[in-house]
Amino acid sequence: MTTGSPRRVAVIGAGAVGCYYGARLAQAGHDVHFLMRGDYAAVRERGLEVRSKDGDFHLHRPSVHRTAEEIAATGPVDWVVCALKATAVLEARALIAPCVGERTRILLLMNGLGLEDTFAGWFGAERIFGGLAFTCINRLRPGVVHHIDYGAVTLAHFLDAPETLEDARSLWDGAAVTVQTAPSLLAARWNKLLWNIPFNGLAVTAGGITTDRIMSNPDLRAAAEATMREVIAAANADLEAHGASTRLDAGEAIPAMLRATEAMAAYRPSTMIDFVEGRPLEVGAIFGEPLRRAEALGVDVPYLTLFTVLMRALDPARASAG
Amino acid sequence: MTTGSPRRVAVIGAGAVGCYYGARLAQAGHDVHFLMRGDYAAVRERGLEVRSKDGDFHLHRPSVHRTAEEIAATGPVDWVVCALKATAVLEARALIAPCVGERTRILLLMNGLGLEDTFAGWFGAERIFGGLAFTCINRLRPGVVHHIDYGAVTLAHFLDAPETLEDARSLWDGAAVTVQTAPSLLAARWNKLLWNIPFNGLAVTAGGITTDRIMSNPDLRAAAEATMREVIAAANADLEAHGASTRLDAGEAIPAMLRATEAMAAYRPSTMIDFVEGRPLEVGAIFGEPLRRAEALGVDVPYLTLFTVLMRALDPARASAG
Repeated sequence: MTTGSPRRVAVIGAGAVGCYYGARLAQAGHDVHFLMRGDYAAVRERGLEVRSKDGDFHLHRPSVHRTAEEIAATGPVDWVVCALKATAVLEARALIAPCVGERTRILLLMNGLGLEDTFAGWFGAERIFGGLAFTCINRLRPGVVHHIDYGAVTLAHFLDAPETLEDARSLWDGAAVTVQTAPSLLAARWNKLLWNIPFNGLAVTAGGITTDRIMSNPDLRAAAEATMREVIAAANADLEAHGASTRLDAGEAIPAMLRATEAMAAYRPSTMIDFVEGRPLEVGAIFGEPLRRAEALGVDVPYLTLFTVLMRALDPARASAG
Repeated sequence: MTTGSPRRVAVIGAGAVGCYYGARLAQAGHDVHFLMRGDYAAVRERGLEVRSKDGDFHLHRPSVHRTAEEIAATGPVDWVVCALKATAVLEARALIAPCVGERTRILLLMNGLGLEDTFAGWFGAERIFGGLAFTCINRLRPGVVHHIDYGAVTLAHFLDAPETLEDARSLWDGAAVTVQTAPSLLAARWNKLLWNIPFNGLAVTAGGITTDRIMSNPDLRAAAEATMREVIAAANADLEAHGASTRLDAGEAIPAMLRATEAMAAYRPSTMIDFVEGRPLEVGAIFGEPLRRAEALGVDVPYLTLFTVLMRALDPARASAG
């Protein structure tokens, strides 16, 4: 099923997203190595099972490792796919560094704004790519992920270099993943936040509810729309401040997001799952950094402000810290 | 301890607020009759106990009744003190009507906007008074209330008639309650909402937290202030629309509310208690009606909007209704 040459891939952060996309790359014939901690034993024993709306599959003997050094010892890594939670970004450097050789590229399959800047500072800007997965994937139990809906990945290069981007795109040749490239990483990130901010925000602050309950309640849906308008205003101010030529178009992007969300099953956004399971919330990358930029640019974002404040207050990581 | 003539008072709605103020009126020598449902047996047996920062006291044999008809059968009622939850307003008419004779006046010790209009429609405008209790009172268990802090009541007449108001004030002569009168009921109601909207809103949506946690967190405190600015804008537009001459002054009212809240103990606002105990929330009177008026008047109130939407979504009454 491989098209082009197989690459050696290290998946760092093997939650639902890392497992799913890593499994898709393995299915396409790449030599994929998963760094696993909690789920290591289960996956060693029973493999990696993907239940997908596009057909189930099972990797019976995936390459799993307990440390990045162990992955590096198997040979040079072409691609690091980093799918850590944004809350774990401080650990990312040490987890990734052993796999980064001269020609290694790094794809961030993570949520939030500004993460690529941090990675570029650590490993150099040229090798950094952002991957934006518009998908509904939940982890059912160790070694079993459920691909519920969607699944497309948008790829962008940190320096917005088109020729380099083609290289990232070709990694997915032959993989059962719809891939598109975006000319502006910043615009792509904001476009993802256009969904994440209202739907993660409402799903958590309205008590841990699924997307269908937001969409079927006119009040909550209107609040999602009002939040989206703020995100677009902040996005366009930020894009302008960064000298980007791209802008988000409210008249196009908002109805498209609403339609896509309406077509979803009763989905539990990742932050909502973290919330109900008492895990740290990705507040900084999804809410805090967008809010910081909006405020610095003088954009009025009351919904984003209140969501950020409430998410911080509701974040189990903060609550346990006092 | 009575000053002036004792009145016959019916307290309808004997939660924390009804029990506390009813007990204060009884302590002052009035003939107070409590309508009780769930707590009837406990209060019949053990009386009504008030633990107060101003000194504890105990009504050993308060007059408690299971129906309003029973109260009416004891003789004509001078004052109905209605301390029902705003969520029970639809029951109020039937609960109060038996006690309302020709000269009966009705004092609403309730939260929220627009309730007096409803009562005026039912029983006539002249007899309707609003009472705004700025106080921290919690019910500890059947028959035992805890008066934690503050306690002053502001009285206003539905038609803003000063001479009638004096009559309401005199009811409290000799009672250990600080009473003041307000020339405008509408302004007084909005001034109360200036506290209730931000602090009930944040205490619930931030996960069920006490006021001290709001005040000690700069983000939450700033959100409270931003919400207050919206409430003042809505209040002043509403006062203008009603032809009232009073206005709320942001520069005076907001710092005063913040100081008062800072000086409070770790208080659990009533809506927060309802929330954590799974009871219906007073969303309509505290959030819905103020929002409706702000929207009708074209006042931009994003914080109030988002609080209203979230409170509705979090309201156990709605959740259980589907």
